[in-house]
Amino acid sequence: MQSVSYKLGRFFLCGLKYNSELVRSVVNFARGKRVKMAVFTVVGAVKQARLAYYDQAEHEYQKIKLDRPLEIASCFGNLSLKDCKPFAHVHAVLADAAGKTYAGHLLRATVFAAELHLQELLGKKLEREYEQTTGLALWEFRR
Amino acid sequence: MQSVSYKLGRFFLCGLKYNSELVRSVVNFARGKRVKMAVFTVVGAVKQARLAYYDQAEHEYQKIKLDRPLEIASCFGNLSLKDCKPFAHVHAVLADAAGKTYAGHLLRATVFAAELHLQELLGKKLEREYEQTTGLALWEFRR
Amino acid sequence: MQSVSYKLGRFFLCGLKYNSELVRSVVNFARGKRVKMAVFTVVGAVKQARLAYYDQAEHEYQKIKLDRPLEIASCFGNLSLKDCKPFAHVHAVLADAAGKTYAGHLLRATVFAAELHLQELLGKKLEREYEQTTGLALWEFRR
Repeated sequence: MQSVSYKLGRFFLCGLKYNSELVRSVVNFARGKRVKMAVFTVVGAVKQARLAYYDQAEHEYQKIKLDRPLEIASCFGNLSLKDCKPFAHVHAVLADAAGKTYAGHLLRATVFAAELHLQELLGKKLEREYEQTTGLALWEFRR
Repeated sequence: MQSVSYKLGRFFLCGLKYNSELVRSVVNFARGKRVKMAVFTVVGAVKQARLAYYDQAEHEYQKIKLDRPLEIASCFGNLSLKDCKPFAHVHAVLADAAGKTYAGHLLRATVFAAELHLQELLGKKLEREYEQTTGLALWEFRR
Repeated sequence: MQSVSYKLGRFFLCGLKYNSELVRSVVNFARGKRVKMAVFTVVGAVKQARLAYYDQAEHEYQKIKLDRPLEIASCFGNLSLKDCKPFAHVHAVLADAAGKTYAGHLLRATVFAAELHLQELLGKKLEREYEQTTGLALWEFRR
């Protein structure tokens, strides 16, 4: 297993803006604070969301449209680089009024209210690169 | 986006007591250790739970009663201040014997067994205040 | 409530290997880095998984077989000792192509792609011991 060891940098609490796009907001927040690598969690609620499921045979994402208000029951991920730009890999579990859940890779979501907890990681900047077996952009540890 | 930067304080592992109320236990634990601000996760199982879904149009919480034993598949949140007292904002994903899930804002739950991982945050004490657009008690960063 | 306070050690980002067993990979990674106590999260996708639900009355785990590709919507837990060996306590929320979720105690899963975020904890090594009321192997804080 390939890995990198990091030192812990700043820890941020941040209120994401009403009506902003969640994933882009996390990336923009990190960029504004000059954070290069991070792990984060988000708790709150969204007005709508697009999840995705990765088809492991076909090597393509299938979109799941959720055009209704949902609680963010869980949401976490990491921030690294892809095509030399900050990229957030985020998965989420969303819940409706009956407590029923929808989950997967979070493509985007419109924030109703959301609290971001972000831990900056100090050390090697990991870049994502296309990996053939999975068809995914995975961390390249050797560069 | 408004935010605050924190230094990391103590990290606690804690076993919540059998039959205790989960959310109150987290708050009481923090209070006993003089922790003012924190992020935390919980893993374990509960005997019963009350979740809530926030109706974004009506600005009110709808309760979801779950009167049966459930795994805590995910549970995390933050600790800050509300009405000058420690307040835990917690969301959870709970699972039954078939692996079926129920999720949302965790109001309370009776602990069967639960392990708390709590990261103390050192810095500004954030207070929650009523925010008009959402009708929620959100962090007030300007005070 | 019994608890232990830790100092934060190294933070690792790690790519788990394609086709490896997820839980064992986390334990083996920690062992290789001489990490004794830790908390961690995992994001990614699995080819198949075995979840478990703990029957609180019968004091036994019921297995949930999931023989299909699933997103890891959430996955976190802790690493401590059981029978003097590193033991990972992990819960997960998995999601299928429709965003439908399955969750509980993660027994094992075959990695398609998975990113591990692991925080080493420096301090007392907690050992799990059989606890009569729950029938579970819980942390023994007094030793």
